[in-house]
Amino acid sequence: MTLSKQELSNQNYFFEPDQALHNDIKEQVMQLFSSSNQAISIEEKIEQIINGFSEDFLTTVNSNSRVELNYLLGNFSDSKIPVEPVNFENYLQDLGNNVVAHSIHTSSPRFIGHMTSALPSFVRPMAKLMTAMNQNPVKIETAKALSFCEREALAMLHRLIYNFSDNFYAQHIQNNLSTLGILVSGGTVANITALWCARNASLGAKDEFLGIEKEGLAAALDFYGYKGAVIIGSELMHFSFDKAADLMGIGMQSLIRIPTDNKNRVNIKALRQTVKNCLAKNLLIISIVGVAGTTDSGGVDSLADIAEIAQAANVHFHVDAAWGGPLIFSEQHRHKLAGIEKADSVTIDGHKQLYLPMGIGMVFLRDPYIATAIEKQASYTMRKGSFDLGKRALEGSRAGMALFLHAGLNLLGLKGYEFLIDEGIRKTQYMADSISNMPEFELLAIPDTNLLLYRYIPEHLRERVIKNELTENDNQVINDFNEYLQKLQRQTGDTFISRTTKSTIKSGREIPVVALRAVIANPLTKEEDIDAVLKDQIQIAAKISILKDFS
Amino acid sequence: MTLSKQELSNQNYFFEPDQALHNDIKEQVMQLFSSSNQAISIEEKIEQIINGFSEDFLTTVNSNSRVELNYLLGNFSDSKIPVEPVNFENYLQDLGNNVVAHSIHTSSPRFIGHMTSALPSFVRPMAKLMTAMNQNPVKIETAKALSFCEREALAMLHRLIYNFSDNFYAQHIQNNLSTLGILVSGGTVANITALWCARNASLGAKDEFLGIEKEGLAAALDFYGYKGAVIIGSELMHFSFDKAADLMGIGMQSLIRIPTDNKNRVNIKALRQTVKNCLAKNLLIISIVGVAGTTDSGGVDSLADIAEIAQAANVHFHVDAAWGGPLIFSEQHRHKLAGIEKADSVTIDGHKQLYLPMGIGMVFLRDPYIATAIEKQASYTMRKGSFDLGKRALEGSRAGMALFLHAGLNLLGLKGYEFLIDEGIRKTQYMADSISNMPEFELLAIPDTNLLLYRYIPEHLRERVIKNELTENDNQVINDFNEYLQKLQRQTGDTFISRTTKSTIKSGREIPVVALRAVIANPLTKEEDIDAVLKDQIQIAAKISILKDFS
Repeated sequence: MTLSKQELSNQNYFFEPDQALHNDIKEQVMQLFSSSNQAISIEEKIEQIINGFSEDFLTTVNSNSRVELNYLLGNFSDSKIPVEPVNFENYLQDLGNNVVAHSIHTSSPRFIGHMTSALPSFVRPMAKLMTAMNQNPVKIETAKALSFCEREALAMLHRLIYNFSDNFYAQHIQNNLSTLGILVSGGTVANITALWCARNASLGAKDEFLGIEKEGLAAALDFYGYKGAVIIGSELMHFSFDKAADLMGIGMQSLIRIPTDNKNRVNIKALRQTVKNCLAKNLLIISIVGVAGTTDSGGVDSLADIAEIAQAANVHFHVDAAWGGPLIFSEQHRHKLAGIEKADSVTIDGHKQLYLPMGIGMVFLRDPYIATAIEKQASYTMRKGSFDLGKRALEGSRAGMALFLHAGLNLLGLKGYEFLIDEGIRKTQYMADSISNMPEFELLAIPDTNLLLYRYIPEHLRERVIKNELTENDNQVINDFNEYLQKLQRQTGDTFISRTTKSTIKSGREIPVVALRAVIANPLTKEEDIDAVLKDQIQIAAKISILKDFS
Repeated sequence: MTLSKQELSNQNYFFEPDQALHNDIKEQVMQLFSSSNQAISIEEKIEQIINGFSEDFLTTVNSNSRVELNYLLGNFSDSKIPVEPVNFENYLQDLGNNVVAHSIHTSSPRFIGHMTSALPSFVRPMAKLMTAMNQNPVKIETAKALSFCEREALAMLHRLIYNFSDNFYAQHIQNNLSTLGILVSGGTVANITALWCARNASLGAKDEFLGIEKEGLAAALDFYGYKGAVIIGSELMHFSFDKAADLMGIGMQSLIRIPTDNKNRVNIKALRQTVKNCLAKNLLIISIVGVAGTTDSGGVDSLADIAEIAQAANVHFHVDAAWGGPLIFSEQHRHKLAGIEKADSVTIDGHKQLYLPMGIGMVFLRDPYIATAIEKQASYTMRKGSFDLGKRALEGSRAGMALFLHAGLNLLGLKGYEFLIDEGIRKTQYMADSISNMPEFELLAIPDTNLLLYRYIPEHLRERVIKNELTENDNQVINDFNEYLQKLQRQTGDTFISRTTKSTIKSGREIPVVALRAVIANPLTKEEDIDAVLKDQIQIAAKISILKDFS
């Protein structure tokens, strides 16, 4: 049968639209995947637009746009994926208007309220390289050289903490039986990993018992004759320890939080007594936790004292140095971490004071073999005896973030990091001095490192502050004022300081104190920026005093 | 007192070196942090070099360099951080020679052995933007618009899975009390998070009991009157479930692995019986797990049947669709996931079949409130009633990976992803057909999706394979041969296929079968690349036959 032209055309008519659409989609998709050498590729066009975004973003001084959250969220209310690919120029325009324009300028010299700051410029091209290479360190077959590069970078920081012999590092740095450190997504996973290792190592296989890993917590405690299991540390432990206690099945009630002194350091006497009590009650102490840089005020526990207690009790000693760990780079400030070298495990975040992008948590292990307590295998991957980094880790597939870490350690060096740490603390001292000299503010504590707590005092209460005559009600007025001030400052968007709530004891009662919280870790922050932030707060406070009645 | 010139010079001599070094370091560091408008900045110089790396890397066809691991690791044996910043040009040269040159070409069209492939080009500039913006979605104060953007992207995939009403999404998409999905670092954390939610939701606070979160697993099981807790799923469950069972304190023995059929799907009858047995024994079933795309062969469980069992037993139903989830984009293949919409939680990895960079795991939740079972707060962050995404998550600080996800869903669209899924499966069929027609290979299973298991058969054993007359010893010879072949192929570095070990039952005995494992997910892989991979294996096998005695 021969079809007439008309028939052919009809037939085409029935098939063409789908086929044409299919071909069109195919072409669009393949264009997105090609790394072609066309005159100007899609990638280059996208890059040009994005470079514009980045430049604007990185050079803006204000901390964020003034748009209110409730208005902003209306731009993100579409739950349907577009059927066909959206034109990239249109998409990027929307992205610029809706996302980039209303993101937080974490690199702004006047955004000094959280643990994010400007990053060294090399991280931006490195991010592109990491994404181009798209290595997956879970196994050596998807991350060949990078697996060794990661091990080397982790060994460097291990050595900075523990300073074992040349021989030790020669033996362990590239030995697939050893784990000097584990690169994870963040401090939370690092802390959980450390406690997981500690728990499993102390409840391992013995005689007929197969170990907690296989038989579970209840059977393990039963076999070893414990009445329960606890984790002990300062009341200022990061909330990741709540997650760990919950996740690991001991419950948050078994996370024992010890009171701190007025420098936000765990009370050593109380800690010692608690350890004694737990041992007397036949409780397994999974770990004693020291905090090196509390999240809310930067306080560093007396690690040497804690180490001594842990050693005497033969208990795992973990240090959460997610924030404060890099003090170790500073000759001047390193002494604050004295005792960290006695820790069994140490958490440090690369995305905090190592000035690397988000997503670099690390846990360092004194005993290179302790991580075998959490080792897992799988036939399709993770082979015993391999260099697969995923076999002793909480996470599986992950990005090659070691590229940033390795580059940071080399391109900044010991001296570069020392400079950054010293500068942050020096400028914090400047801010503390300024605040002390301004009647508008009250400094809430002499800063230990580079976190600073203070508050604004409404004019009519200043004299009472000086005379130390604040009533509980006055304090509540100040709290409300500062909460409002912080929110309005954030909303106004020129500068940024965060807030937290501390408590002080007055006449035996716990009084909550709302504190403004500065984090001075941005190398771009100059003294004049600090002045500007404080001035901004004073101006906002003046407006509040007119607008609202805080008396 | 006036100092003589000589004295001045002496004094300078004592102070100058340190001060000069300090100033020098300061200058170097500040240069790295500046986003200056100098004629050509350090960032631009670094970018030029790195662009060269990327281009070479992305256009190389071979899968990796021939350098052996034992040789390579010698390049990474320095455990000392350089004292002073290393010159960036020198560093990048070393990085190029030592890391980039010996990384795995995961994007190569002939690297078809793991779940990594070429990525769309927009991810590279987007990586730079993400790093420039350096948002931290743990809290709204460090990720303003991006928090909403992330919620929108997760809602889009939630809708694709569950397809609830417009009204449902309008109510939950930007409601801070609701959690439609959680963005995590990878499938492992996604699976752990799902099981954590399931465990805590079924052992929550009641009457005087404060819930497992606070009181722990043993007290919770005791209060609710359970004899123990288990997780049930296919024997082919990913090893992240081992981690979950270990970490959560139930122990790996309480992870019950049910046998699978010859299509790698869980045996429904055995599953039903096991559930019955566990209930009879008064064990809490934390979750029944369905696998949508096993890691070693891509098999998809019969989710509808599992859903029915879970529903009848009133048990949480989790689907690990880390790999196979995106089949839902394909009209042609979606039916394989039928029943996924009945799951209480679903894991999907963005860095697998959504073609996004490493580090994008997701868990989707049917009940927008179930994640409150794991909610935590902290005074310095994570406030109740806020949009802080970190309050219902295992992780804390994390990168703004939602940028990639949101861009992928928009720039590829439903049709774009459908094309990618369909193409992968079509090309896998091509490879299966090729293998079936080649005497050198044996196809080990008809591929369900885009993973393919096969093996090379040494010439002298081919007839026995055809006649189904292989002895156990013959099988062992074939296993050894294939293991050697895969290693040599990897080492040679032109093409890549991974391997796994399956077991088959012969005369009631479990026989291990070493399988070559192809993963066809790279849009750049053409039929000719598949031909080249198979040809490469035949050539390597020929060499092996000469070199080694496998008889």
